[in-house]
Amino acid sequence: MTDFKVNQKDIFFILKEQLGYGSLCELEKYRSLDEKTLDLMVNEALRFAKGVVAPLNAIGEAQGLGFENGRVTCPAEFKEVFKRYGEDGWTAAVRDPEYGGQGFPDMLRIVVNDFMYGACQSFNMAPSLTHGAAHLIESFGTDTLKQAYVPRMYNGTFAGTMCLTEPNAGSDLAATETMAYPEGDAYRIKGNKIFISWGEHDLAENIIHLVLARIDGAPEGVRGISLFVVPKYRLNADGSVGEDNDVVCTGIEEKLGLHASPTAALAFGGKDGCIGYLCGERNKGLAHMFQMMNSARINTGVSGMTLASNAYQHALEYCRQRVQGRDVAKRKTGSVPLVDHPDVRRMLLWMKANVDGMRSMIYTAAFWANLAGESDDPEIAKHNQRLVDFMTPLVKAYCSDIGFEVCSTAMQCLGGYGYCKDYPIEQYLRDARIMGLYEGTNGIQSMDLMGRKMRLDDGAMVQAFAAELEKFIKTNKNHQGLGKYVGDLEEAFARVREMTKMMIEKNSSDPLQWASYTYPALLCYGDLVMVWRLLDMALIAWDRSEGKAKKNDYFRGKVAQATFFADMTLPHTITRAHSCMRSGREILDIPDGAF
Amino acid sequence: MTDFKVNQKDIFFILKEQLGYGSLCELEKYRSLDEKTLDLMVNEALRFAKGVVAPLNAIGEAQGLGFENGRVTCPAEFKEVFKRYGEDGWTAAVRDPEYGGQGFPDMLRIVVNDFMYGACQSFNMAPSLTHGAAHLIESFGTDTLKQAYVPRMYNGTFAGTMCLTEPNAGSDLAATETMAYPEGDAYRIKGNKIFISWGEHDLAENIIHLVLARIDGAPEGVRGISLFVVPKYRLNADGSVGEDNDVVCTGIEEKLGLHASPTAALAFGGKDGCIGYLCGERNKGLAHMFQMMNSARINTGVSGMTLASNAYQHALEYCRQRVQGRDVAKRKTGSVPLVDHPDVRRMLLWMKANVDGMRSMIYTAAFWANLAGESDDPEIAKHNQRLVDFMTPLVKAYCSDIGFEVCSTAMQCLGGYGYCKDYPIEQYLRDARIMGLYEGTNGIQSMDLMGRKMRLDDGAMVQAFAAELEKFIKTNKNHQGLGKYVGDLEEAFARVREMTKMMIEKNSSDPLQWASYTYPALLCYGDLVMVWRLLDMALIAWDRSEGKAKKNDYFRGKVAQATFFADMTLPHTITRAHSCMRSGREILDIPDGAF
Repeated sequence: MTDFKVNQKDIFFILKEQLGYGSLCELEKYRSLDEKTLDLMVNEALRFAKGVVAPLNAIGEAQGLGFENGRVTCPAEFKEVFKRYGEDGWTAAVRDPEYGGQGFPDMLRIVVNDFMYGACQSFNMAPSLTHGAAHLIESFGTDTLKQAYVPRMYNGTFAGTMCLTEPNAGSDLAATETMAYPEGDAYRIKGNKIFISWGEHDLAENIIHLVLARIDGAPEGVRGISLFVVPKYRLNADGSVGEDNDVVCTGIEEKLGLHASPTAALAFGGKDGCIGYLCGERNKGLAHMFQMMNSARINTGVSGMTLASNAYQHALEYCRQRVQGRDVAKRKTGSVPLVDHPDVRRMLLWMKANVDGMRSMIYTAAFWANLAGESDDPEIAKHNQRLVDFMTPLVKAYCSDIGFEVCSTAMQCLGGYGYCKDYPIEQYLRDARIMGLYEGTNGIQSMDLMGRKMRLDDGAMVQAFAAELEKFIKTNKNHQGLGKYVGDLEEAFARVREMTKMMIEKNSSDPLQWASYTYPALLCYGDLVMVWRLLDMALIAWDRSEGKAKKNDYFRGKVAQATFFADMTLPHTITRAHSCMRSGREILDIPDGAF
Repeated sequence: MTDFKVNQKDIFFILKEQLGYGSLCELEKYRSLDEKTLDLMVNEALRFAKGVVAPLNAIGEAQGLGFENGRVTCPAEFKEVFKRYGEDGWTAAVRDPEYGGQGFPDMLRIVVNDFMYGACQSFNMAPSLTHGAAHLIESFGTDTLKQAYVPRMYNGTFAGTMCLTEPNAGSDLAATETMAYPEGDAYRIKGNKIFISWGEHDLAENIIHLVLARIDGAPEGVRGISLFVVPKYRLNADGSVGEDNDVVCTGIEEKLGLHASPTAALAFGGKDGCIGYLCGERNKGLAHMFQMMNSARINTGVSGMTLASNAYQHALEYCRQRVQGRDVAKRKTGSVPLVDHPDVRRMLLWMKANVDGMRSMIYTAAFWANLAGESDDPEIAKHNQRLVDFMTPLVKAYCSDIGFEVCSTAMQCLGGYGYCKDYPIEQYLRDARIMGLYEGTNGIQSMDLMGRKMRLDDGAMVQAFAAELEKFIKTNKNHQGLGKYVGDLEEAFARVREMTKMMIEKNSSDPLQWASYTYPALLCYGDLVMVWRLLDMALIAWDRSEGKAKKNDYFRGKVAQATFFADMTLPHTITRAHSCMRSGREILDIPDGAF
């Protein structure tokens, strides 16, 4: 028995009925696959998550991490599973076979991460970062780099990290101070990085850091940042692991959560003995790193969602079992299970809608990302890339903030027991709270969405999004049972567009007022996507929701969550869009001393 | 240096300028006092909180609690301070001198708790529960009980608890199973209690438990519950502490937060050796206990608010010091402090308004409570008691939920650093989360507010509240600068009243639908009180907010927080009130199997 719980039926409803993910097998790249193979793979991932990864969660939470003389030690079980995770092909499930990948469609990476993060958030960051780092080398590195590192990262022999943050460069990477001094074909790296997830540990034979640094003499700001491959141990000429590369872990953070995931401070080249290899073009490091950052942002949303999903499932189980209090309408005598209390059901339904809506939002974005990368039609690829660019900050910020709120609501369902470590919800709450902070705070995501993403290509990204939403509205607004709600979505969308127009205008004319309201504006878009995805599922379920037979209960749930969520949310979306357009300038005008 | 931070000016603004708390000295009971004495006392409390209590917070968090052989050990410093807290008169500051009290006005208990909980939440629960338990004996006990226990509880020699919850009686006290068997003048107590805060510890010579139990043969349900005084150690005839009373601590909870506050499971009379003394009338135990429960509910709101206040002050300090990122409007070159970023200012202003509004809400309720208890005019006393009865669930639920949200927002301001234990915000977040759960979950508070509190005395409580709010609106709606916002409040209030009327009707005609929406309904009332209190402060500050001089900054802050909060909140209040009236029945109709 582990703590990991997931509603498998919900997963496949989205994959098969909502997205028809089998259609990915029609793409040239995946011709050798069919939907049945994909289903098998998803089921295998679920089995691996439940059987192999999930037991790590309680172990990691109980044992935590050791840190002595610059070395981090993890529970022994983590080491075993990290190796097996690579060997069994999960790290590189969606990568090309050339470097050891399994060749599955890219969107399955997100599905696999849904399960693996859900099974153990702290642990799964390790293979997930390793995948991201290796894929970065695969995308931008020389053949030599690729051959030296990528296969061993994909197969669980080596691990990987992304090293961006420095003491003076957190949200602002332009302030990066780590230096790279040319030396032969390579560079001497010198600088300090902090908040490096899995920056030091004992799970693998080597740790391959993907590091942002400035080549001596490079321009200031983000245009002078390059990307380097910096191994913990250098490789010998024969590829075997060699001497120490002067990457020293000077400490790990004590944190609210993620107790089994080491957050390291790293000193590169403190003794001038750190060698790094340029990965990709000089001074294009940030652009290259964005491949990994965007992927990490989506994964952050995945984590928020899947922790919420877990928390909801635990709350649901508790509410079905725990008997406490009388029925408010006296339908039964004596005490009744919590699930009979309307106020508890309100919380359960709200959580169910949020979890299913977020999962659909994320899987949809992953499906689009897969088309963007692999569609044989360049127009389709371009359109889908725009959709993904638009969705990335939304998935990151909305699913992290709502994910945390769901965890807190799940705790509420358990009363005082929810606060106790007898149940895993308090851990999910703590683990989930980081998601709004790392990989770019949610405030930064909101400025990305309402700024750069609205401006680029004359607004092509938001237009791509609007086209999809409009198509959905047009197709469904006369639906007999759900048309009213689709109409409400249309109305809310119109108001959000009005707000967006004003925000785009203010972005240049009054950037301070603009920046005061980007975050609530992001929430508006998140709400729209949620209602859209939930109604889409409800429409699919509609015909099967009408009969009173017990087998139809599942589909009635899809309809109920959609109409409830739409009705409870869209009026607030409109209100919030209106707030973003207000002329009050208190945020800016309040004197600093008055706070 | 401790972590405790409070804006003293805000405290006195509410006490002196908004409430005119000196007027309490015109009451017969407080004739010997004047406002200056009250000010002195508040300043002394602040000094004690900062100097004596605040250092306990880091100690408690670092050392936690020991538990062995049924004994809980606390950090040595806790023991010293508990004694001193009593000796210096803080435990019984507002109680009558007859049993060792200082005779200060009752509302100052809330102000003192604001500081003491802010200084160390875990610790201050001990003297606060001791006060509540002793006051319960003072109110309902025999003279013998009073003399035996009360003075030593007030002076820090003995501690006290409230013992309500049992494994099968959490939210539903009707299910209480602990028994009391008559034996001479006393009773043999037998049963198990859980979740007893400070139920076992080594801070005092004795622990006096106030226990709910059923006298053998008593009626079922809440009408068969009596209140007992059950000491950990019996007292000898001369009053000295004697033999063990068979109250055994069988375990303490491991929790998300409150790591220095023992949450005990207690077995009473496991060896048939537990004696208890009836306190008050037979079978009236729950009614008596409500004195302590109501007080604990208000204190829960105080805790939520003061942890939020602390978290906000820490975030503010960080945002002023931390330099990161460029000015979005290029007003300055180079990197700027976080406080210059509009999205950060949005969070700071939102927190400021919430903290100041909640503090004003709580102090106002405490002022009313003081008038209810001590007014020389019975009509005034009655009116104010109704106000307090109405406000109790609101203060408890609204300030706990918003308090937690403020802590989370404060964390957001610090980025990744907020997640680390280098800053105390992560502790405030963990400590604050219990407030929505204990002393009756917030769902239960909402049913109390929208049910019992709306019905009793033909709605006299909500009418008393409405009369006060109407008076405020009528007086101020033509104010030159703030009249518009007062008008918005009037509009929102009208919509909330409409919703209330429907909810009262549904409470009997359709209790299931009613219970589905009591929680959002409670939030509506909380919003109204917040806007009212914030506008009231803004009106007081208005004249001094107009000049551009630096000394007027403080008053401009009062105006800015009020207009911002009103504008950002009231439209959502109206939307939420509307939601509470919806006819959709998804919460009730969704099949249990569909969750």
